[in-house]
Amino acid sequence: MKGMLEKFFSPTSVAVIGASHNPTKIGHVIFKNFLERFGGRVYPINVDTSPILGRKVYASIKDVNDKVDLAIIAIRAEAVPKVLEECGEKGVKACVIISGGFSEIGRKDLEEKCKRIAKKYGMRVIGPNTAGIYDAYSGVDAMFFPENRMKRPNRGKISFFSQSGAVGSTFMDLMAVEGLGISKFVSYGNAMDVNECDLIEFFGRDKKTEIIAGFLEGVRDGRRFLKVVKQVARKKPVIILKGGKSSVGTRAALSHSASMAGEYLVYSSVFKQTGVIEAKECEEFFDFLKVFSKQKPPKGRRVVIVTNGGGFGVLASDECEKQGLELPEPSDRMKKLLRKVLPPHAVVNNPIDLTGDATAERYLNVLKICMRSKEFDSILLIILLQIPTLGKEIVEFLGKLNMKKPIVCCSAGSEFSKDLIKKVENIGIPVYPTPERAVRALAALTRYAELERTKK
Amino acid sequence: MKGMLEKFFSPTSVAVIGASHNPTKIGHVIFKNFLERFGGRVYPINVDTSPILGRKVYASIKDVNDKVDLAIIAIRAEAVPKVLEECGEKGVKACVIISGGFSEIGRKDLEEKCKRIAKKYGMRVIGPNTAGIYDAYSGVDAMFFPENRMKRPNRGKISFFSQSGAVGSTFMDLMAVEGLGISKFVSYGNAMDVNECDLIEFFGRDKKTEIIAGFLEGVRDGRRFLKVVKQVARKKPVIILKGGKSSVGTRAALSHSASMAGEYLVYSSVFKQTGVIEAKECEEFFDFLKVFSKQKPPKGRRVVIVTNGGGFGVLASDECEKQGLELPEPSDRMKKLLRKVLPPHAVVNNPIDLTGDATAERYLNVLKICMRSKEFDSILLIILLQIPTLGKEIVEFLGKLNMKKPIVCCSAGSEFSKDLIKKVENIGIPVYPTPERAVRALAALTRYAELERTKK
Repeated sequence: MKGMLEKFFSPTSVAVIGASHNPTKIGHVIFKNFLERFGGRVYPINVDTSPILGRKVYASIKDVNDKVDLAIIAIRAEAVPKVLEECGEKGVKACVIISGGFSEIGRKDLEEKCKRIAKKYGMRVIGPNTAGIYDAYSGVDAMFFPENRMKRPNRGKISFFSQSGAVGSTFMDLMAVEGLGISKFVSYGNAMDVNECDLIEFFGRDKKTEIIAGFLEGVRDGRRFLKVVKQVARKKPVIILKGGKSSVGTRAALSHSASMAGEYLVYSSVFKQTGVIEAKECEEFFDFLKVFSKQKPPKGRRVVIVTNGGGFGVLASDECEKQGLELPEPSDRMKKLLRKVLPPHAVVNNPIDLTGDATAERYLNVLKICMRSKEFDSILLIILLQIPTLGKEIVEFLGKLNMKKPIVCCSAGSEFSKDLIKKVENIGIPVYPTPERAVRALAALTRYAELERTKK
Repeated sequence: MKGMLEKFFSPTSVAVIGASHNPTKIGHVIFKNFLERFGGRVYPINVDTSPILGRKVYASIKDVNDKVDLAIIAIRAEAVPKVLEECGEKGVKACVIISGGFSEIGRKDLEEKCKRIAKKYGMRVIGPNTAGIYDAYSGVDAMFFPENRMKRPNRGKISFFSQSGAVGSTFMDLMAVEGLGISKFVSYGNAMDVNECDLIEFFGRDKKTEIIAGFLEGVRDGRRFLKVVKQVARKKPVIILKGGKSSVGTRAALSHSASMAGEYLVYSSVFKQTGVIEAKECEEFFDFLKVFSKQKPPKGRRVVIVTNGGGFGVLASDECEKQGLELPEPSDRMKKLLRKVLPPHAVVNNPIDLTGDATAERYLNVLKICMRSKEFDSILLIILLQIPTLGKEIVEFLGKLNMKKPIVCCSAGSEFSKDLIKKVENIGIPVYPTPERAVRALAALTRYAELERTKK
């Protein structure tokens, strides 16, 4: 059944089974999503065949006089097997069962029944009990979250799978807020058929996916998982947030997704072994996605910090050491170059402290030297915009820089800062609100780079 | 000289020495701040006695025909000793030397000279090389940061000292963004006279200070520091962020504030011994301030998690275990009560998973039971607002709760969420964007509570 996941994301025609006349119902929201976003043909299915949103409604998928690639099923659990059978007869090859009420509430029997039907017809199934799937390019949007509650991220290069529907939908909303672009999203729910391994494999091959991101509580087939991530993580960054790291978390995962979250140490060592980038918590997950979306991996661990606040330089240095990044002192030659463009009270070391009267010019001159230098592999830039001497032209100057090496920035504050930070991010420099988060993102990128080199 | 710091924060008259005619100059910004915010009398001092902002200017502080309590000095370093001498003759008892150009650039001689003058007249000095001081109640504002760059936080109960001026000003701006209210702020710069120990002692006695917060790189008198924090931390929460935790960070601190940041382990154990709450990084500093500002310490470690997203419950559980918080299973009696108000598919355990179709009523009913229960000491509330069944009335319902025990919330998302989150915070519940941050804040509050009980 390899390779059969394409139909989920690039169907030419879709049936929404359980498309509802009631605007507050899941089946209505999903049908509306397709009408608004999807380029292909959409067929609403409901026993009540009065039109929905002005569209002709079919009593059964079998009444549709067209080939159907993808069926979204949002009806009560008990009715799903019959409908699935009809999908099979119709020749549908991809089904998403949104409905809950299966193994997660002890109805394993109902799930097994569906499994047998799917197998009989060679259908791939996502779900049941899922928050849906999403493709920013094709416009497939089977997520039942209204847009005012859950913003849809822009088109981008991240494909994201989540075992938890709530984590999936909240993270999608946050990706939109953070400006992280997405290719595909899958909430795989009870994983009756399609699971994390299938998705990682598929995203690994998918041309529109450059970064693979996932939230998982547990995997069912450890051996396959090991094999799949080993293969895929060699090609693309795979960033995973693992739930169920502790004994109480594992217990919670068991009642949540019936996952054997298992010994975290095993997962952790699999991640390390295979080159999976593990985000230790939610925030890191987003921080890592941002840096991998915007910057190329550095050639080594040698970081130079450029700051206009000494205290922030100290905090960044602390985190660099903690993360295993190096902060070598600039050579005498480089120091000489730096002193030429800096006032005597600036600190020419590492961190390079431009001090509290730093101007945009001072930043530009120093960054030019750092970009050219062979003594450093990456730059950690700290820009505190509270300080009145630093003008808005800093953005324009950063835009002019020849980005010969990866650069990550730390800046934070109220409106004035927020406005400039957005502009800095728009020129491709990821900005983090604290020095520690900026350093951890850079460290993740650096570790990935080392893995990349090991492979060659 | 004990107790002599009051004049810095509640002067009746202030002289701004170096008040400038040029709106871009530090001396102008500070004078303007006083005119706009300060209730008492303000005298601008400048050799050019043409009016500034319509106010009569004095050539020397000695020309002022009034008692002056506080002098803010913002002139070039070389001229400071003479002016300080005049302040002494005038009977001023509190001076803030904003000017840089002293020991931080090797001019220890100039600093020593000032020290001798201050001693001769019994003057207390903050600085030199400081970002200023601030009192939200009296309107003392000697910070040279324009308001569009650095917002001033509202009046509140936190007093904050910072060894670094940049950390101080950026954090002030962020406190305003985060809605954290402040009483007093001091950037103590080179600490020629007033240092962290004086400030902690003073804030400990100050009636308008309920929470003491500080950023420090190193202390000069370890023995006194130990004695002071031991005493003060028994009375009020003292939250400290330490810069220079690593060898490279210590090196950076040395070139920044000439601090012997010293062995971090020593600091860390002093913090533990004395009951100082250590924020391990910038973000925790704010997260801890928020929880201490809004909630009372819990009676014990037993947390109940209430969530509408299973995955978030799992992540929160993981962090609880990591932080040493307990998640006991509810008793059969409590489970029975919970089942009465919950649908069968809800998970009645810990976390209590209200699941993806949770309504505001469901939350209210469960939270009422949790508030009354003697089985738990605090509540971790997870509210994912992406989910369409959860209405805006959740805010109103939370407002009705009888807050018998501390409650901390996790919620995040785009506009819809942001709007409701602000409202939840306004009713006194601190909200964090990730489960991990919410748990760490609650854990800090819990550890403090245990310390409180040990004292009794």
